[in-house]
Amino acid sequence: MSKIDAALYERLRSVIEDQKFIQHLGAEVEALQSGHCEISLLYDERWSQQDGCFHRGVVGALADNAAGLAGATTMVDGANCLTVEYKLNLLAPAKGKRLLAKAKVIKAGRTLVIAETNIYCVNGSEERHVAMALVTLIAV
Amino acid sequence: MSKIDAALYERLRSVIEDQKFIQHLGAEVEALQSGHCEISLLYDERWSQQDGCFHRGVVGALADNAAGLAGATTMVDGANCLTVEYKLNLLAPAKGKRLLAKAKVIKAGRTLVIAETNIYCVNGSEERHVAMALVTLIAV
Amino acid sequence: MSKIDAALYERLRSVIEDQKFIQHLGAEVEALQSGHCEISLLYDERWSQQDGCFHRGVVGALADNAAGLAGATTMVDGANCLTVEYKLNLLAPAKGKRLLAKAKVIKAGRTLVIAETNIYCVNGSEERHVAMALVTLIAV
Amino acid sequence: MSKIDAALYERLRSVIEDQKFIQHLGAEVEALQSGHCEISLLYDERWSQQDGCFHRGVVGALADNAAGLAGATTMVDGANCLTVEYKLNLLAPAKGKRLLAKAKVIKAGRTLVIAETNIYCVNGSEERHVAMALVTLIAV
Repeated sequence: MSKIDAALYERLRSVIEDQKFIQHLGAEVEALQSGHCEISLLYDERWSQQDGCFHRGVVGALADNAAGLAGATTMVDGANCLTVEYKLNLLAPAKGKRLLAKAKVIKAGRTLVIAETNIYCVNGSEERHVAMALVTLIAV
Repeated sequence: MSKIDAALYERLRSVIEDQKFIQHLGAEVEALQSGHCEISLLYDERWSQQDGCFHRGVVGALADNAAGLAGATTMVDGANCLTVEYKLNLLAPAKGKRLLAKAKVIKAGRTLVIAETNIYCVNGSEERHVAMALVTLIAV
Repeated sequence: MSKIDAALYERLRSVIEDQKFIQHLGAEVEALQSGHCEISLLYDERWSQQDGCFHRGVVGALADNAAGLAGATTMVDGANCLTVEYKLNLLAPAKGKRLLAKAKVIKAGRTLVIAETNIYCVNGSEERHVAMALVTLIAV
Repeated sequence: MSKIDAALYERLRSVIEDQKFIQHLGAEVEALQSGHCEISLLYDERWSQQDGCFHRGVVGALADNAAGLAGATTMVDGANCLTVEYKLNLLAPAKGKRLLAKAKVIKAGRTLVIAETNIYCVNGSEERHVAMALVTLIAV
C-alpha cells in the first residue's frame, strides 16, 4: 500500500461527503491508500435488524462503499468509479459496537477494477469476521 | 402465487416491524404471497448517493429484504429465514420517486431457498429496471 | 426476440466452432436470436461427477457460454464479448439425458451486458430446473 | 494449515477419482490439508477457448472443485460437501502451461462452509492471478 496524492485524496473525500446515505449512517473513512480503504460505522439501533445485530443491508452498503473507494484510488485521469455488481457472503451475526469494512483491490484494470472487502465487528480488541464481498467496479 | 395463512402473515409482519433499519428507511410491504414479496421505498435525500439516485446500499438492502420475506413464506414450521449470500447487479441509475423490489422464490428447498429480486424505479406509470439480485437463504 | 442478421449469425457460429472445449463437450447451439441463446449437451459419463449427474463444472461452462452468446448478439460493430464474472446457483442434481442452457439478456448496455441463464435437465418432455446463473459481460 | 487424518484423505481421494469429468480433464490434487486444497491442470487444446487460453468453463470447474475439497476437509462425521453456489471473477486471460487453483476455507460452519479460490496460470516460476471465486458449500 502506498499513499495517494493529496488531490485524489481530497476528491474522494468530497465524493463520500456527497453520499448522503453514507453521511446519514455516520460512516467514517479510517484509511485510504492506493488500492486500499477502510470504513467504519458505530452501532445504533436504527441500523439494526430484529436480533440487535447490524442489518445485513447496512453491512452490504459498507462493504460496497469501501470497495468503491479502494477502486477509485486506482483509477486514472479523474475517472469516476461505479459499482457494476457485488456478491456478499454473510459469515456470522454482525453483533458489535463497530462495523469495520476493509477493502483491497485484487485487480486494477483500465476499465474494470475487482476488489474484495472483508467486514468485521469490532468489540474492544476483538475483530470478528462477519462478511466478505467480491466487487466489480467500472471506470466511467 | 397463492395466499399465505393469516398466522404466517402476522408473524412476517412482526419480523419486518422488528427490523429497525427497514422501519427507519420507511420501507413498506406492498405484497406478500407464497413465494412472492414486494417492498417499496419513497425517495428521500437521506437515502441518496452523490448523483441524486438511491444509494446502491439502499438498493441492495431492499433487494435482500424482499428476497428474505419471499423465502420466509415458503419455510415450514416457523423456521426463521436468514440470508446466506446475495449477488446484486446494478443495471441503471436508481433515479426515481419510489424504489420497488419484487422478489420471487426460484427454488424452495427444505433447508435452502433461492430467490430472485428485480428492483425498479417507479416514476408515475413507468417502471424502470435498475437492479437484479440472486439470493441464497437458509431456514434456521 | 427477433432474428439476428446472417453475418452476425455466421460470426458467432465460428466463435463457437473455435472454442475447442465446447466442441470437445459436443455442445450444440439450439437457438440464437437477438438477446437469446440456447445450448444443449448430451450426457456422457465423461461429463459426470461422482453421482451420475452432470458435473457442476460442466453446468457452469454451459451456463456461461449461453450467456456469452446471448450477449454477443446485442453487441455492436463486431465487438467481442468477454465474461467479466458470473454467479451460479445449483438448484437440483443435474441428472438427465440432456443439459439445456437458456440465456437471455437482461440489460444490453454499450459496454456492459447483463444476462441470465436458466439450466434444465431434459428427460423426454420433462424439463427440470437445475441451475441459474447471473452473468456480467463486456464488449471489447 | 494442519494435516488431515489418513482416513479422510483416502475418502476425499476416492471422491475425486469418482468425478469422471475431473479425471477426464486430468486434474491433479497438489495439496490437501485442513481447510486448504490445491488442484492443477495441464494445458491441452481440448480445454481451450478461441484464443488459446484455458476455457473459462474449465477455470470455473477447477475453482469450484478446489473449494469443494477444501470445504470437505472441514466437515465432520463423513458429511458430503455440495456446492450451493459460486461466483467467479475472471481477472486476466488464462494463458499458460498449467492452471493452478488454490482454495482456502474462509468460514467453516456446521452446515455451511464458505471458501475462496484463487486461480493462477503457471509458466515456469511465474504465477499469474487469472481468476477468483467465492464459494458457498453445504454439508449433507
